[in-house]
Amino acid sequence: MDRAHLKAILARVSSGEVPVDEAVERLSHLAYEDIAFAHIDHHRSLRKGFPEVVYGEGKTAEQIIGILERMVEQESIVLVTRVTPDKADRIQAAFPEGVYHADARMVIWGEPVQDDASRKPIMVISAGTSDIPVAREAYLTARSMGNPVQAAFDVGVAGIHRLLGYHEQMAAAGVLVVVASMEGALPSVVAGMVDRPVIAVPTSVGYGSHLGGLTALFGMLNSCSSNVAVVNIDNGFGAGYMAAVINRP
Amino acid sequence: MDRAHLKAILARVSSGEVPVDEAVERLSHLAYEDIAFAHIDHHRSLRKGFPEVVYGEGKTAEQIIGILERMVEQESIVLVTRVTPDKADRIQAAFPEGVYHADARMVIWGEPVQDDASRKPIMVISAGTSDIPVAREAYLTARSMGNPVQAAFDVGVAGIHRLLGYHEQMAAAGVLVVVASMEGALPSVVAGMVDRPVIAVPTSVGYGSHLGGLTALFGMLNSCSSNVAVVNIDNGFGAGYMAAVINRP
Amino acid sequence: MDRAHLKAILARVSSGEVPVDEAVERLSHLAYEDIAFAHIDHHRSLRKGFPEVVYGEGKTAEQIIGILERMVEQESIVLVTRVTPDKADRIQAAFPEGVYHADARMVIWGEPVQDDASRKPIMVISAGTSDIPVAREAYLTARSMGNPVQAAFDVGVAGIHRLLGYHEQMAAAGVLVVVASMEGALPSVVAGMVDRPVIAVPTSVGYGSHLGGLTALFGMLNSCSSNVAVVNIDNGFGAGYMAAVINRP
Amino acid sequence: MDRAHLKAILARVSSGEVPVDEAVERLSHLAYEDIAFAHIDHHRSLRKGFPEVVYGEGKTAEQIIGILERMVEQESIVLVTRVTPDKADRIQAAFPEGVYHADARMVIWGEPVQDDASRKPIMVISAGTSDIPVAREAYLTARSMGNPVQAAFDVGVAGIHRLLGYHEQMAAAGVLVVVASMEGALPSVVAGMVDRPVIAVPTSVGYGSHLGGLTALFGMLNSCSSNVAVVNIDNGFGAGYMAAVINRP
Amino acid sequence: MDRAHLKAILARVSSGEVPVDEAVERLSHLAYEDIAFAHIDHHRSLRKGFPEVVYGEGKTAEQIIGILERMVEQESIVLVTRVTPDKADRIQAAFPEGVYHADARMVIWGEPVQDDASRKPIMVISAGTSDIPVAREAYLTARSMGNPVQAAFDVGVAGIHRLLGYHEQMAAAGVLVVVASMEGALPSVVAGMVDRPVIAVPTSVGYGSHLGGLTALFGMLNSCSSNVAVVNIDNGFGAGYMAAVINRP
Amino acid sequence: MDRAHLKAILARVSSGEVPVDEAVERLSHLAYEDIAFAHIDHHRSLRKGFPEVVYGEGKTAEQIIGILERMVEQESIVLVTRVTPDKADRIQAAFPEGVYHADARMVIWGEPVQDDASRKPIMVISAGTSDIPVAREAYLTARSMGNPVQAAFDVGVAGIHRLLGYHEQMAAAGVLVVVASMEGALPSVVAGMVDRPVIAVPTSVGYGSHLGGLTALFGMLNSCSSNVAVVNIDNGFGAGYMAAVINRP
Amino acid sequence: MDRAHLKAILARVSSGEVPVDEAVERLSHLAYEDIAFAHIDHHRSLRKGFPEVVYGEGKTAEQIIGILERMVEQESIVLVTRVTPDKADRIQAAFPEGVYHADARMVIWGEPVQDDASRKPIMVISAGTSDIPVAREAYLTARSMGNPVQAAFDVGVAGIHRLLGYHEQMAAAGVLVVVASMEGALPSVVAGMVDRPVIAVPTSVGYGSHLGGLTALFGMLNSCSSNVAVVNIDNGFGAGYMAAVINRP
Amino acid sequence: MDRAHLKAILARVSSGEVPVDEAVERLSHLAYEDIAFAHIDHHRSLRKGFPEVVYGEGKTAEQIIGILERMVEQESIVLVTRVTPDKADRIQAAFPEGVYHADARMVIWGEPVQDDASRKPIMVISAGTSDIPVAREAYLTARSMGNPVQAAFDVGVAGIHRLLGYHEQMAAAGVLVVVASMEGALPSVVAGMVDRPVIAVPTSVGYGSHLGGLTALFGMLNSCSSNVAVVNIDNGFGAGYMAAVINRP
Repeated sequence: MDRAHLKAILARVSSGEVPVDEAVERLSHLAYEDIAFAHIDHHRSLRKGFPEVVYGEGKTAEQIIGILERMVEQESIVLVTRVTPDKADRIQAAFPEGVYHADARMVIWGEPVQDDASRKPIMVISAGTSDIPVAREAYLTARSMGNPVQAAFDVGVAGIHRLLGYHEQMAAAGVLVVVASMEGALPSVVAGMVDRPVIAVPTSVGYGSHLGGLTALFGMLNSCSSNVAVVNIDNGFGAGYMAAVINRP
Repeated sequence: MDRAHLKAILARVSSGEVPVDEAVERLSHLAYEDIAFAHIDHHRSLRKGFPEVVYGEGKTAEQIIGILERMVEQESIVLVTRVTPDKADRIQAAFPEGVYHADARMVIWGEPVQDDASRKPIMVISAGTSDIPVAREAYLTARSMGNPVQAAFDVGVAGIHRLLGYHEQMAAAGVLVVVASMEGALPSVVAGMVDRPVIAVPTSVGYGSHLGGLTALFGMLNSCSSNVAVVNIDNGFGAGYMAAVINRP
Repeated sequence: MDRAHLKAILARVSSGEVPVDEAVERLSHLAYEDIAFAHIDHHRSLRKGFPEVVYGEGKTAEQIIGILERMVEQESIVLVTRVTPDKADRIQAAFPEGVYHADARMVIWGEPVQDDASRKPIMVISAGTSDIPVAREAYLTARSMGNPVQAAFDVGVAGIHRLLGYHEQMAAAGVLVVVASMEGALPSVVAGMVDRPVIAVPTSVGYGSHLGGLTALFGMLNSCSSNVAVVNIDNGFGAGYMAAVINRP
Repeated sequence: MDRAHLKAILARVSSGEVPVDEAVERLSHLAYEDIAFAHIDHHRSLRKGFPEVVYGEGKTAEQIIGILERMVEQESIVLVTRVTPDKADRIQAAFPEGVYHADARMVIWGEPVQDDASRKPIMVISAGTSDIPVAREAYLTARSMGNPVQAAFDVGVAGIHRLLGYHEQMAAAGVLVVVASMEGALPSVVAGMVDRPVIAVPTSVGYGSHLGGLTALFGMLNSCSSNVAVVNIDNGFGAGYMAAVINRP
Repeated sequence: MDRAHLKAILARVSSGEVPVDEAVERLSHLAYEDIAFAHIDHHRSLRKGFPEVVYGEGKTAEQIIGILERMVEQESIVLVTRVTPDKADRIQAAFPEGVYHADARMVIWGEPVQDDASRKPIMVISAGTSDIPVAREAYLTARSMGNPVQAAFDVGVAGIHRLLGYHEQMAAAGVLVVVASMEGALPSVVAGMVDRPVIAVPTSVGYGSHLGGLTALFGMLNSCSSNVAVVNIDNGFGAGYMAAVINRP
Repeated sequence: MDRAHLKAILARVSSGEVPVDEAVERLSHLAYEDIAFAHIDHHRSLRKGFPEVVYGEGKTAEQIIGILERMVEQESIVLVTRVTPDKADRIQAAFPEGVYHADARMVIWGEPVQDDASRKPIMVISAGTSDIPVAREAYLTARSMGNPVQAAFDVGVAGIHRLLGYHEQMAAAGVLVVVASMEGALPSVVAGMVDRPVIAVPTSVGYGSHLGGLTALFGMLNSCSSNVAVVNIDNGFGAGYMAAVINRP
Repeated sequence: MDRAHLKAILARVSSGEVPVDEAVERLSHLAYEDIAFAHIDHHRSLRKGFPEVVYGEGKTAEQIIGILERMVEQESIVLVTRVTPDKADRIQAAFPEGVYHADARMVIWGEPVQDDASRKPIMVISAGTSDIPVAREAYLTARSMGNPVQAAFDVGVAGIHRLLGYHEQMAAAGVLVVVASMEGALPSVVAGMVDRPVIAVPTSVGYGSHLGGLTALFGMLNSCSSNVAVVNIDNGFGAGYMAAVINRP
Repeated sequence: MDRAHLKAILARVSSGEVPVDEAVERLSHLAYEDIAFAHIDHHRSLRKGFPEVVYGEGKTAEQIIGILERMVEQESIVLVTRVTPDKADRIQAAFPEGVYHADARMVIWGEPVQDDASRKPIMVISAGTSDIPVAREAYLTARSMGNPVQAAFDVGVAGIHRLLGYHEQMAAAGVLVVVASMEGALPSVVAGMVDRPVIAVPTSVGYGSHLGGLTALFGMLNSCSSNVAVVNIDNGFGAGYMAAVINRP
């Protein structure tokens, strides 16, 4: 429930369209709602401008559906991340209007946030083909939060001319999300070329001493460029969210 | 075999109800019993006030059943932890009165310890939905050891108003068990609000740099609150046990 | 050399005030300048909006002075970080107008960037007294880059009412920098209360299993709040820089 | 300021002994006090039953003195931990009644908490001679919080008969604090012998693969005894504090 | 091929029983034999007193059989370790006289080394039920190398009276192998009770911060007893082998 | 597309055999080609002397086939590494002339680079039987790049006479690739015997404290021989490639 | 106090030479003696055949002297390890007959254990010059325990012909102690050449990824030779002690 | 003693210039020489083409001088690495013709190897100013071994135009040594631009999560360019040596 939604209810109370008792009922869950295995934070869209996002890993399809049942009554968009195809089938059976993006392992129910503000695009760049699932998670999150988003995938530093082909697009972006595994060098190089904030996302793809993504993570934290900050390994959602918060006018 | 049990046998010997030879036989295994793959510590309930708990992981169903066969003759309650549904089926075939708590992966045979002491409740708090199995293991262990137990699940620090709703319940508890993954911040915040001991349990749920729960573990060890001590990752049983020992009048 | 500076030179060339040959000389080092032990990136202020910052650790006082000699000819402000009092003395002997901020271990030469844009303040928050040096480095960097900055130090989560006293100030900030050691929980709690971006800075202060700041670092990366991104341990400069880049209109 | 202290002030207001204005002044700092480099949590003794403890490492003698100046006006006892002899001299110059315990690196100002409750003793056990500083920190903290405390030092598992000599004393304790380095085995052995809670403290003493105490820490977390919980490496203060909280009637 | 075997061939050559050409053929592979995927070290039994042992993990059943085909022609006993039941079936199909010890995951072909030397027994002790596979590997290896072997399983430090029951047997052993996981404390306690060498074997059984056995490994390396040396995690074979080498008269 | 290939096209343009428009079309993709999930670096064979190699892990069979479709039009040889038998079947269905080397998990399409240069052989040595897959990857890569290659497998340091049997072959090699797991000692010993460069490859085979190959990796980096450099764990391809680059006349 | 010492006292009691009361006094401390900062384990020489060894690190010179005062009354030899020159001076002032071996950082008071048993020599081998202090600690410990000891220093694997020059001496040894840093390969190579037990000692000498000796430690644990067991990093004393225990007839 | 040196002696024997007995004396130390604390490997220059290099860390000035005394009699150049200014003074007092290169912490005695072969230059590149000591060590080593060497310092990826200015020089090099700390990205970028071998050297310079150079090390091992191999952290000598071995015609 965001501010617009809340205002609308109150306006309808004021006009008599919605009786007070019904409004009380609907607003009474505002703070949070206890459904035994979860406390849903309905207050979050008011406090933070976007509703709670459901982290799908470690939850059963039943638990996710139970949470969604409460959320769709109050929100205009709900994101579920880390959803296996299996769970997605069961969720879509309950919420047919939810869309499953298999490449990003996300279920999105509802429509992207819309407002009148004009924003610069967010640009999502990935170093390799196998970083695409994480990059797509960032892409869809940022778009769901009302941003124009652009993408360039598989443009790592081993062939730097591929990256240079996107120079103008990069310069025009408001925020950049850079997803990479291996040595995690791409965010440094990108950040050295632009004057806007870069959110770096290490991925767990690799072998040998990549250490499940820690190598890329530490590489990014030690970036010699200063306009870089880092989110957790494989956290495409967090990067997209952070980029959208920065890009908010 | 706890003190009450031992006293009862001796009383019946004293009254002639149990012949000496039979008593000898039953008490001869008091120290421990060697069943080839295990040395059962029958002495433990006397020494520590609660019988040995069977750690189910790494034991076959046959080994667990073999151990249970000896224990149920001497104890009024036996706990088996880390039991897969598969093994649970085979254990219950042998001990139909054993109850399998799938959400906590425990088999409990017998009745909770009962005594006349009045105790404050133990409160079990979990940060997220996926921490529930560990929290439930703590819950059931503490209850089996004769404590009133209360629970609040999914009340992590990202929406701190959810936690505040439990303030009075927290203040009334004798001991608190706080289960969390991610950054492991919840025990610090809870411990800052109460003056009773907090047992912190990190869980292995998470991704990226959570390091299988080490991140939460180290976070809890570095808590800036002083009424916190920590047990091993995912060790819900140990937390419930320690809380019960502390809460013992 | 930022755009304004460049424009000014060209205007004076255009007006005949500066002869072409002199302008050529001054602009010829624009790309970079090789002084044996360093390649000074004079192009950076044009490309990134702020001149290269000199990282003082691992450089002798002579090397720092050598670099400053070239930079002060082209820039209106130069920052040197990680400067020991010893080196500071020698630098100030060569550049008496440079100011040494001992609490932040920085030498600042010149005046903060000034422009007409109105910006929201950046707020710098630290969890403990011993995090202050890192927090001050962030503070001075953000201010040097033309931002109003506010601070609240020693407001960690063990006594959360101290933090709540700053609620309004936090809500009014454009970007927040949160500096913490120990379990690194403060950024999560702060980020849960605001809807603006939070840059988290772990510090290496602590003992035992703090692992030189890795515990706080991993805690912050695993934050359960999504409007958080992280910079390297003790990297107050990077946090201040990133916050300023985000806050740039 | 604990409850007794607060009650006393109010009683004197009630009796007219203290004018209202003066009481307002004294109580106005109740929540916390901002002295630029610290927010002193005066509310803590009310909330937690013992005043904030000053962690001396990373603070200058001046900062510590500044904090003490405010605290001694409100509290009857103040502990400062991790104090070098150097800093201790300067602190004692300002507060001559503060006592420096060099073996525990603590300054204690004021008198142990006194109440009418009768408590079992807390027993502090250390494995080796070099663990004594940490064990003494636990000892003095527990005593300052109003507990009878007993100690047995250098009774590690390589000569287990030394430990057995303390069997009766151990059985009579209400809580046990066990300090050990090396393989961290002592808490397991002690906990196997008693039915009360054991707080284990790993120390950073050792060499080779002791990993700065991590080896002992992990050993203790993996204890095969269940009445054990662990605090951070070298955290004698925390262990003593936690033991006192548990032992509180 | 051990010395006895070699002498026997040469004696039969000397007596004319074996023609020179046949002897040449049999001895020609003495140094090593190249079978494309392996260089079999036939010289090892002469050099080290026991033939090369085949490490089964990472080899196909075909490769193991190929190696055995060459070895059984030259040796009187061959051990294959880390054999899954699957591979064991296929090996036994080729070598029906090979015995599969499922609890130790070993195939043993041939008879234990026999010599006239009288030796003290080797004693194998394990802390828990789930350490038994590793302990059995040590047991069978030591026995195959011609030693009397005794065993006591599941006698960990949480109930130290179980261990004390074996005191005399321990005192009579020539070498002790102690297998443990968790905190790895058992070897220290055992070594503190005897004056003979103790070979400690950490196992990878456990959960949470056991770190795949590293916790037990480091605990054992930091043993406060001096008559302890350590082999790799789960290396029951190596422990049995080392014990047998030490026990060799 | 290597230089010879490019020259051939241009010659045929020059001779009128290929119309200009067709040549334009074929050369237009020279820099790189964007096929949604990949940017193929066609320029690489010109820049580096060998075409881009497709890393098969983390790519679907469809993605690999899509990339191959573009590459085979421009290159005379293409390598795909880390291919499971499953994916190999599907790739071979699309490119029947591609050969799958199951022991090295590689698909090779086309013919080894051929030139007139005479080169010394590259020698690939492995310590154990289970290192063979990685050694074979190095072998096939070096051969594909136009080198004579020799191999000796299973010649580890526990029976050093096996290695000495290859002394002359080793002395005659131009570059040596040494593949080992366990303690990673083989490269040091080999490098101590020759005066040519040794490329060391740690493998992830092993158990206990081998740490997924990190033990061998660190051992090799700490080699006491100076003519050794190291590639990533299991990176047989990289070792073969680096050896071929060094051996290039 | 070893058995011979004890027997002597009792014989003199029996012969009337020593009055019973005096004997009682001297034997009363047999179990252990509590001197506030230490519990001296006088029973150890009886139980283990060699008196407790004083670990000097982390003890003050005063504490060491205090312990020695009690021990010299009961033992014929006392070893103090890890003694800085500074502390050695003060110890020798109190015990002028104690000898300080600066290269091994040991103080030895008394004479090596002497018995009639004939033993094979123990051989101590070191890989590099900087491993000598640790190797000397092993050397002196083994000699103090009554063994003939031989040494070969700086014979690492980079020039393996140096090691081969000691082949006969190695073959004649009863036990070998091999000290090495870097990749820790020397114990594997030595153990491959002999049929006696090898005690491997990693040292903390090195740089880069030697990880304070962990690289050598893990290398030795992963030795492909089976007659190797390992002690802690830099633990020359432990290696010498273990070798002497093994070599005891 | 290299081949030329040996040939010269033999020629003079053949011509009668050197009597046989004197030649015997000089050649008798050929294999190695035992000087108590070291076994000098005089055979190395024959076997590997360059004499043993003395690693100065962990050796006293006396030990270094003792080794030099033997070596200068047989070699025409000797390198001593990791020499503090202090030790350098004492070495130069004994060998005044030795030159101390303070920036590389090396003492070089004698003249670079000279031969008639023409070689391409080796190029040494460093990312930052503080990497220069390691880069200089590589530079001087490669030059001592008879190579033309070029250098470009402080050309890291944050301002990639600085690196591009050296493109032609890089393309003309026979081997490249790239020294970097932080994220270790420079070798990947350089290797992507050339077709010759790149030896990557991580340095321990940095702060926060650089982990003493492990971050750069792992980054380089995970390079997405294939013509890269890595040496140990700070191992400038090893990189220069390896480059020279590769560049040897």
